[in-house]
Amino acid sequence: MDGKKEFVKEITDMDKDFASWYTDVVLKAELVDYPPVKGCMVIRPYGYAIWENIQDVLDKKFKETGHKNAYFPLLIPESLLNKEKEHVEGFAPEVAWVTQGGEEKLTEKLCIRPTSETIICTMYSKWINSWRDLPLLINQWANVVRWEKTTRPFLRTSEFLWQEGHTLHSNEDEARRETLRILKIYAQLCEEWLAIPVIKGRKTDKEKFAGAEETYTIEAMMHDGKALQSGTSHYFGQGFAKAFDVKFQNKEGKEEYCYQTSWGVSTRLIGGIIMTHGDNRGLKLPPRIAPIQVIVVPIAQHKEGVLEKAAALTEFLNKTYRVQIDAREEYSPGYKFNQWEMKGVPIRLEIGPKDIEQEQCVLVRRDTGDKEFVKLTEVQKRIGEMLQDIHNNMLLKAFENQKDRTFVVKNMEELKNIYDNKQGFAKAMWCGNRECEDKMKEEIGVTIRCMPLEQEQIGDECVCCGKYAEKMVYIGKQY
Amino acid sequence: MDGKKEFVKEITDMDKDFASWYTDVVLKAELVDYPPVKGCMVIRPYGYAIWENIQDVLDKKFKETGHKNAYFPLLIPESLLNKEKEHVEGFAPEVAWVTQGGEEKLTEKLCIRPTSETIICTMYSKWINSWRDLPLLINQWANVVRWEKTTRPFLRTSEFLWQEGHTLHSNEDEARRETLRILKIYAQLCEEWLAIPVIKGRKTDKEKFAGAEETYTIEAMMHDGKALQSGTSHYFGQGFAKAFDVKFQNKEGKEEYCYQTSWGVSTRLIGGIIMTHGDNRGLKLPPRIAPIQVIVVPIAQHKEGVLEKAAALTEFLNKTYRVQIDAREEYSPGYKFNQWEMKGVPIRLEIGPKDIEQEQCVLVRRDTGDKEFVKLTEVQKRIGEMLQDIHNNMLLKAFENQKDRTFVVKNMEELKNIYDNKQGFAKAMWCGNRECEDKMKEEIGVTIRCMPLEQEQIGDECVCCGKYAEKMVYIGKQY
Repeated sequence: MDGKKEFVKEITDMDKDFASWYTDVVLKAELVDYPPVKGCMVIRPYGYAIWENIQDVLDKKFKETGHKNAYFPLLIPESLLNKEKEHVEGFAPEVAWVTQGGEEKLTEKLCIRPTSETIICTMYSKWINSWRDLPLLINQWANVVRWEKTTRPFLRTSEFLWQEGHTLHSNEDEARRETLRILKIYAQLCEEWLAIPVIKGRKTDKEKFAGAEETYTIEAMMHDGKALQSGTSHYFGQGFAKAFDVKFQNKEGKEEYCYQTSWGVSTRLIGGIIMTHGDNRGLKLPPRIAPIQVIVVPIAQHKEGVLEKAAALTEFLNKTYRVQIDAREEYSPGYKFNQWEMKGVPIRLEIGPKDIEQEQCVLVRRDTGDKEFVKLTEVQKRIGEMLQDIHNNMLLKAFENQKDRTFVVKNMEELKNIYDNKQGFAKAMWCGNRECEDKMKEEIGVTIRCMPLEQEQIGDECVCCGKYAEKMVYIGKQY
Repeated sequence: MDGKKEFVKEITDMDKDFASWYTDVVLKAELVDYPPVKGCMVIRPYGYAIWENIQDVLDKKFKETGHKNAYFPLLIPESLLNKEKEHVEGFAPEVAWVTQGGEEKLTEKLCIRPTSETIICTMYSKWINSWRDLPLLINQWANVVRWEKTTRPFLRTSEFLWQEGHTLHSNEDEARRETLRILKIYAQLCEEWLAIPVIKGRKTDKEKFAGAEETYTIEAMMHDGKALQSGTSHYFGQGFAKAFDVKFQNKEGKEEYCYQTSWGVSTRLIGGIIMTHGDNRGLKLPPRIAPIQVIVVPIAQHKEGVLEKAAALTEFLNKTYRVQIDAREEYSPGYKFNQWEMKGVPIRLEIGPKDIEQEQCVLVRRDTGDKEFVKLTEVQKRIGEMLQDIHNNMLLKAFENQKDRTFVVKNMEELKNIYDNKQGFAKAMWCGNRECEDKMKEEIGVTIRCMPLEQEQIGDECVCCGKYAEKMVYIGKQY
């Protein structure tokens, strides 16, 4: 077997330098590559296939709940962006501007959408006349651009892919319920498909979306204890509707402004998957969105009958799961094991001459490394169970990390102590004042991640000022 | 039934002014709307659903033939665009330029991709080392921007949606076969899903893609006799590979440049559907990609049991087909008939009290207007047959239009005569010289649409210069 190459698995130790580990993994697992465009990323086929699987899940859920997809322009005239005051203040500093089209210098510059509220509201004001036109439930799958100074693949890039839903309602109650309905869909996606436990909550006024009345969020804890905001759902009230004149005639024949929501998740979720589940052998993909669920590696594949048997087994299993064979001649099985571990494939199936003799194969779990001999007559059923086990185990492990690193704190000293020594979430009471929020950020570098929907009574004094506090919040350092 | 609104079906007569008819239909059928951004379009949910159905068909076919999806950046640095000489000359005049990011003026301006060869080749040169890495078969679903002066929804807009495939091969033969394989997939999509007959052929050097060695095309004839280029597939040889240094080590251990293809279809196809099939009642959608295949309209829906029965029938049929009920109270059945005809739904199902009594319903075909009473026990089966019939009939009708308007011409006088009186395709022989091609354009305003793959021996003298000619070509006026 001479001439076989070694798979060089040099990635940084995650416990020594998590940021370098992350960058190593996204490149080595061939999820992304760096293009010669500052702050952007190329999503390679293996990374994009994860995104496609996420899209499938969400698109189905959106459609089941009555949403339809549409497509709005990439370019937004400056005057439109300026219509909602808070919104433009939030986004103007980070947009890319088109100033020239062909040979012609534009009379009004156009921004590349950082988000599409302004252009969508403009169209909605044309489309809505009566209460009968409501609710209007539209989603868009699109790319957006936000000019970021410090970037990292998936987590923060100048261009990213996302979906943005924009809905109109005839009353506040329905719009608020929509906001929360979507938040629950996002949480469900994270837990049931990505094996990422999340905390559902509301953002503080300081942290909310520019122009929103309320922003809801799902917050996940990464392996290093930092928080990843993984999806947001905004209730706008009538703010944008007033700025963009989106009115309807209600059942009583009176004109009213619409109530509005918007919500989105992005390719950032893939960053969340990597940082929640990965280890020093590389990526670890949740089975339900893994592009390859089972990789078949033939052992001693030059021997008669091995490749044929492995290929037939692959074809058979591929009817039920996403299965691929690695029959490359130029690499040793060891090389392949390492590479597919790096790529996070949930199950490796090995089959060699001895196995064939005994009508069995070997299944190896990526999450635990457990090895199991399985009869070929049983293997299809066993893989199904194992994928289920892997999902449960990954979710549990992530949940335990989150639990172990969540600390109840009573005052600033306790809060500071946590972030001096480690990362994690702090659960604390908060009085609701911006000053206290700012002080935590200034002195400790932490932000209020959210006011969780599930409140616990852990005290009644603000962690910062000690005054009476009703709100429990999650605090953390953010990506 | 007072207070019912009339459906105002004012669209221009297609035989008087086809261009205005087209614009009326895209707006009235709610496929698109005009945003306040010059030359762009909003694709509304009904139009976008057609695109989603097209995407489903193609994406499946691409994947079945070994292609994978990926995503490359929207923004391309000027220096990259400049690397392939013919390419930049072709595209530079029509790109949008980003010159400012946030507050910062960019040192190098970035163009919004008009197509992605340059950025993709740059990445490919990093990814390819050995013949073992080939073929590389990647596709991207994306938006592109081309700064167009005269625009029309779907047909020519400054921003549009498309897929662009970009493949690398170790030898010329395989790359050429890929180019044609994709062309056949495009033709199949048009004929088997969109009911649009197309002519497969090769573009002349004058008409080919900037930077390609050869461009293949599918050309369709619209209702008015003009040609719509509906999809293209390019063979690049090693041109881009040399400009971007995309090399591989061949089996003999020598370095070679890769052979390359690219290919794309866009939302323009929706324009093709409209202009191939539509009539003075509006849109006519091919059943296989129609977002709604059957619209159920209850008659006298205020009467007891009608709505319930219609809803139950809708639910039942919806398991097999894409079926929707129009139970709006505020519109009369007549209004609904008109509106759904405008929207091109292939079959209308009417059900009222008398029908219910007789356990039947009425099916009305959009393509022929034929009306048929069908027993409720038979309706599911009958709809399947009817959708099939409608597809066949639409394809046949379009094919007959194409046949009736295709004329064999021997010389410039005959060619001129055709376009003086009517539109259509001219079949003619051509010597291969650019001068003759230019002359036809100058004097008659026509272009060579393609040199069809299926050649016929209709003469041996060039339609223009009368010299010896081996190539039969299709000539026409283009969209």
